[in-house]
Amino acid sequence: MSTQLAEFQTWMKTTQVEFEIALADLLPASTTLPTRLHEAMRYAALDGGKRVRPLLVYAAGRLFDAPLHLLTRAAAALEMIHAYSLVHDDMPCMDDDALRRGKPTVHIKYDEPTALLVGDALQAQAFLVLAEGDASAEVKLPMLQLLATAAGSRGMCGGQAIDLASVGLALNVEELEHMHRLKTGALLRASVLMGAMSGKTLSTSEVSALDVYSAAIGLAFQVVDDVLDATADSATLGKTAGKDAADNKPTYVSLLGLDASRALADKLCRDAHQALLPFGEKAQLLRELADLIVQRKA
Amino acid sequence: MSTQLAEFQTWMKTTQVEFEIALADLLPASTTLPTRLHEAMRYAALDGGKRVRPLLVYAAGRLFDAPLHLLTRAAAALEMIHAYSLVHDDMPCMDDDALRRGKPTVHIKYDEPTALLVGDALQAQAFLVLAEGDASAEVKLPMLQLLATAAGSRGMCGGQAIDLASVGLALNVEELEHMHRLKTGALLRASVLMGAMSGKTLSTSEVSALDVYSAAIGLAFQVVDDVLDATADSATLGKTAGKDAADNKPTYVSLLGLDASRALADKLCRDAHQALLPFGEKAQLLRELADLIVQRKA
Repeated sequence: MSTQLAEFQTWMKTTQVEFEIALADLLPASTTLPTRLHEAMRYAALDGGKRVRPLLVYAAGRLFDAPLHLLTRAAAALEMIHAYSLVHDDMPCMDDDALRRGKPTVHIKYDEPTALLVGDALQAQAFLVLAEGDASAEVKLPMLQLLATAAGSRGMCGGQAIDLASVGLALNVEELEHMHRLKTGALLRASVLMGAMSGKTLSTSEVSALDVYSAAIGLAFQVVDDVLDATADSATLGKTAGKDAADNKPTYVSLLGLDASRALADKLCRDAHQALLPFGEKAQLLRELADLIVQRKA
Repeated sequence: MSTQLAEFQTWMKTTQVEFEIALADLLPASTTLPTRLHEAMRYAALDGGKRVRPLLVYAAGRLFDAPLHLLTRAAAALEMIHAYSLVHDDMPCMDDDALRRGKPTVHIKYDEPTALLVGDALQAQAFLVLAEGDASAEVKLPMLQLLATAAGSRGMCGGQAIDLASVGLALNVEELEHMHRLKTGALLRASVLMGAMSGKTLSTSEVSALDVYSAAIGLAFQVVDDVLDATADSATLGKTAGKDAADNKPTYVSLLGLDASRALADKLCRDAHQALLPFGEKAQLLRELADLIVQRKA
């Protein structure tokens, strides 16, 4: 392993551990009433996942040396939105999944109405965490707008609606890309931009470069997800493998095949690196994250 | 009818009509992709309800002559949160209701996954509408905090969790009041405060007086709801009547009886009037709204 890679992995582990502590602190305590709802919110949001969105926030924050406490609130807000979307996604009327990150999903561990409320309350908590921080209003308000747009009907929720409508349909690659750009891409883009915005007001060209990076890693993330869903087992994934094929959902693998999908992921990774050139050495963490997304095994 | 009452009713009708137009404008167009989701969001939020929360915002705005465009965004954000909560509440895993405001509920008209996403997207849209307005940051950020708190696990969602947990339990009047203070009271309080905050930064004593008013009308609203559920028919209510008794839910009527419930509503209305004394003539609309809440027939 190169020194650089070792340093990156140390940074990642430290960041994940520190973020977990911060996130636990920004969620209502499980002793606060109503305790069962708060317990379930913490069950849904804590102790799970690779924390890709928070890592992107912290990595993008490095570009302009953003203060850590600003990054933490942005990262927590994004992760709460992500966690709520997983809880709702797993519900019987959506993907009906019993396993998530190797643990029973919220509606299995608790019950369906609780899962619905956990998702709703986590979304509200995300906006609260962002609105309450001690960042200046000039930083907070654009972030709140970005998060609300990325989470809403022209972002994540919109992508999920298109995804639902596409089951059994013969989507082409462009349509599949459009769906993923909303469903997962919007929140990844918000992660990168909110991290960078925590450091300075971004110029148009900085936003454009980060948009290219975000779009490339967002799509790569999905292509790799599809490859893993088709090739890995449930134990490795921590969720039910092979669901896409079983559900007759269009995927990159079903449209392009395995080899072309893997080649696409590699190309997208190179695009991401290319987009970071103007930021020089400061973008090293973002580069490593792009590599990680493409090379991950789960 | 007194001249004052006639004037109030004219104000109310005009406000409702103008708010409907503004709300339609602050929701994504049904021609914007994904069109079915946007159609369903508009179906859920438009053309329905008494608009109690928006009316409270506009009425409270009168206290300090708040600019109309600020009030409209606050009112729209609150109504979007309220509309999303109704969509999720009506879903099969919650109240399983097929009728709302005399129309098929969203999961009946569309489908369950769409209802879930409509609620999620309306919540995000509420925060977007508030974050995007041209109010100053000093007005917007406290409003965003207030809305997120009122909507979340220590507000509306928390109240719903307590409500769910209380089915079949022998709640006493205090416990029932606590549940309603969160479930519906938090958003009504936010309506009054956000309306007033649109006019000026509130003093502690102003917040206290408005809190007393909000708590009184919030509780009165619920007591009257329980009375109507026990006495009115589905056609008048525009939703299924008698559900509380059928669901074995504790209500004011089941705990206190009809007469004592009606007397409690009247007492709460007097409390609300009392709390408004310091605001003099400027509080006339808030007074009339308190009367309306207690005297409504549906």
